[in-house]
Amino acid sequence: MTYKVGILGATGAVGQEIIHLLHERKFPFSELRLLASSRSAGKVQEYQGNSWTIEETNQSSFKDLDFCIFSAGGGQSKTFAPIAKEAGCIVIDNSSAFRMDPSVPLVVPEINPEAALTHQGIIANPNCTTAISLMGLFPLHKAFGLKSLIACTYQAVSGSGAEALQELDDQLMAWSKGKNIPPKVYPHPIAFNVIPHVDDFNDDGFTREEMKLLHESRKIMDLDDLMVNCTCVRVPVRRAHSIAITASFENAIDLSVAKEAIKAFPNVELIDNPQQLEYPMPINYSGVSSCALGRMRKTEILPNGLSFWVTGDQLWKGAALNAIQIAELLISRNSAS
Amino acid sequence: MTYKVGILGATGAVGQEIIHLLHERKFPFSELRLLASSRSAGKVQEYQGNSWTIEETNQSSFKDLDFCIFSAGGGQSKTFAPIAKEAGCIVIDNSSAFRMDPSVPLVVPEINPEAALTHQGIIANPNCTTAISLMGLFPLHKAFGLKSLIACTYQAVSGSGAEALQELDDQLMAWSKGKNIPPKVYPHPIAFNVIPHVDDFNDDGFTREEMKLLHESRKIMDLDDLMVNCTCVRVPVRRAHSIAITASFENAIDLSVAKEAIKAFPNVELIDNPQQLEYPMPINYSGVSSCALGRMRKTEILPNGLSFWVTGDQLWKGAALNAIQIAELLISRNSAS
Repeated sequence: MTYKVGILGATGAVGQEIIHLLHERKFPFSELRLLASSRSAGKVQEYQGNSWTIEETNQSSFKDLDFCIFSAGGGQSKTFAPIAKEAGCIVIDNSSAFRMDPSVPLVVPEINPEAALTHQGIIANPNCTTAISLMGLFPLHKAFGLKSLIACTYQAVSGSGAEALQELDDQLMAWSKGKNIPPKVYPHPIAFNVIPHVDDFNDDGFTREEMKLLHESRKIMDLDDLMVNCTCVRVPVRRAHSIAITASFENAIDLSVAKEAIKAFPNVELIDNPQQLEYPMPINYSGVSSCALGRMRKTEILPNGLSFWVTGDQLWKGAALNAIQIAELLISRNSAS
Repeated sequence: MTYKVGILGATGAVGQEIIHLLHERKFPFSELRLLASSRSAGKVQEYQGNSWTIEETNQSSFKDLDFCIFSAGGGQSKTFAPIAKEAGCIVIDNSSAFRMDPSVPLVVPEINPEAALTHQGIIANPNCTTAISLMGLFPLHKAFGLKSLIACTYQAVSGSGAEALQELDDQLMAWSKGKNIPPKVYPHPIAFNVIPHVDDFNDDGFTREEMKLLHESRKIMDLDDLMVNCTCVRVPVRRAHSIAITASFENAIDLSVAKEAIKAFPNVELIDNPQQLEYPMPINYSGVSSCALGRMRKTEILPNGLSFWVTGDQLWKGAALNAIQIAELLISRNSAS
C-alpha cells in the first residue's frame, strides 16, 4: 500500500523537517503535495534529486489525499481542516486549534496510540514542550503514578519558526562584526539573552504555552487530576528544547526502577552519568529521533519527589516526527482509510 | 575616615568589577592594593587615569589593610584568609571556603546586616545564584513566611570567570566564520547550547551549586527548616543570572501585598507588566546594581504557592557589589576596625 500525502505549511521550519523525515523513514507515499500560502506558491522545493512545485492551499487542495500534515498555524488549521476532512483526507494537525476539542484525539504514539484510532478525520499533535516532557514523564508515571509536576523550559528559537532561527543567527552575525540589529520576530534580542515569555500571556500571569503543558498532559495521559506548574523560557539555542522537571508521584521512588522504566520505553534514551559529564544537551539531540533524560535524582521537596532533565528536538518529536509517527501508526493498524 | 583596601584576585572577572565599583560608589579608600597570582604580578592595572602594579599575594600582602575582598577561589581563600585576619585585615570572601563555617557570618546586607557585625575577621559573600534569588525571596518571606522552593537557573558564562566569557565569544566568533573550536573551560560547547551542570556533582545527583542555594538560604535567612530543590543550568548569556522560582509559603498569598513587598525592599525592582512585554531579562540587568523580579503569579501546585522570575548581575550583586556593600555596612556601623 502507498499513500498520497500532503503538507500544509511545507515551506516552514516544521514543513521542511516533514519532507526530510518522510524520506528518511521511507514513508510509503505515492504522491507528496506541498501546500503553502500564495506567497510561496510556484516556488520549487527540491529534496534528494526530486522536485515539487509549491501549491497555494485552496478548497480543492485535499482531493484524493490520504493524509495531510498541517503545520501552518492555528488560523490555517481552523480554515482548512474541516475542508480536508470533508474531502476524506485525514488531518494530522500541529497547531493548537483542535488539541483540546473532545472529538479530536491528541496523540503521542508511544503513549496513547489507541486514542488515534478513534479519530473522526482530525488528529492533533501536541505542543512541542508537552511532547518532549511526556517522553520522560509517561514511563515514570507508569512506574510510580504521576501526581504533579513543576517544569522550567529552555526552548530553542526554531520552535518559533525559520524566521526566529534566522533572527538569532543574524543578531550573532551582526555582533561578530561589532554591529547591533533590532529584533523583529521576538519582542527583545535573543542573542546573549533569555526571554521568560513564550506565546501570549493570560490574565493570571501564565502564558498559553505554560498552560498547554497542563491541559495537554492531562488529555494525553488521561490524568484529569494532574497538577502542573510551568515557566517557559526562550534561550539562544538553535534547536532542541530542554525541560527541567520536578515531579511528585503516588508511590515511593526507587531510582533503579526509574532508570529501568526510561530504558524500557521506546524513543527515549537514559543519558545519566553526570560524573562522566554525560547528560542530555540540545547540541546532542538536534536532528535526533529519540529524546533523552538525565540528571535524575530523588528530592524531598515534594512527596515521592523526583527531579530530572529532558531534551528533545522540538522540530522532530515536538512536531514533524510525532505527526509522521501518527500516520505510520494508522497505517500499521490498517485504519488509514 | 578612609580605608586601605585590597583585592585578592584583582585580575579576574569579579576583581575587575570590584575595582570599577569601588570607584563608582566612591568607596572611601586611601590605598588600593591589587593582589593576584605570580602569573599576573608586575602587570599594570589602569582605571580612570590611575594605575596600579599587580602584586603577587604573599604572607605580608595584608599588612596595614583594613579590608581585603577575596575573589580568587576557595584554595586561595583557605590559604590567605587566616593570614589576613591575623594581620588585622577584615576579609570579605567571595569563595565558598568559609560560607558554612558557623563562626563566619554569611551576609546579604539588605537581609541580615546584623550578622556582619558579629564577624571575627572573615565575612563570607554568598554564591551568586543564592544572592540574586534571595533578593526576591526574602521580601516575600517577610510578607508570607517562606517554607520551600523549587528553582531552575539560567546562569551566565561570566559566572565561571573571564575565560568562560572569552570561550563563549570565541565559539560564536568561530561560528560566524564557519569554523568550530573545541571547548576548554566548559566540558561541552556553550554556544547554541545549555549545559545542566554547574560545579561538581555529589553522589546523590545534585551539584554542589544546587546545594549551595539550600544551605546558604537557610543560613542567611535563619530558616533551618527551609526546603530547597534546585537545577542549575549554564546558558549562552554573557552576564546576569536568571532564576525561575516556585515557592510555598506559610500564609495565603495576596498578589498586591507581594508586589508591594518587592517594591518596598531596597535594590530589587518589580518589572512585572507582561502584557506590555516587561519582565526582567539578563540584557537589561548587566552592569546594574539592582536585581529585578517579575512573572509573579499564584499557583496551586504548592500550598500558598507563588511562581516568579528573578534576574540580577551575578558579577555585581552575586559577587563584587555585595562584597563592597558588606564593607560599606561595616563602615557605616563603625565596626571596621
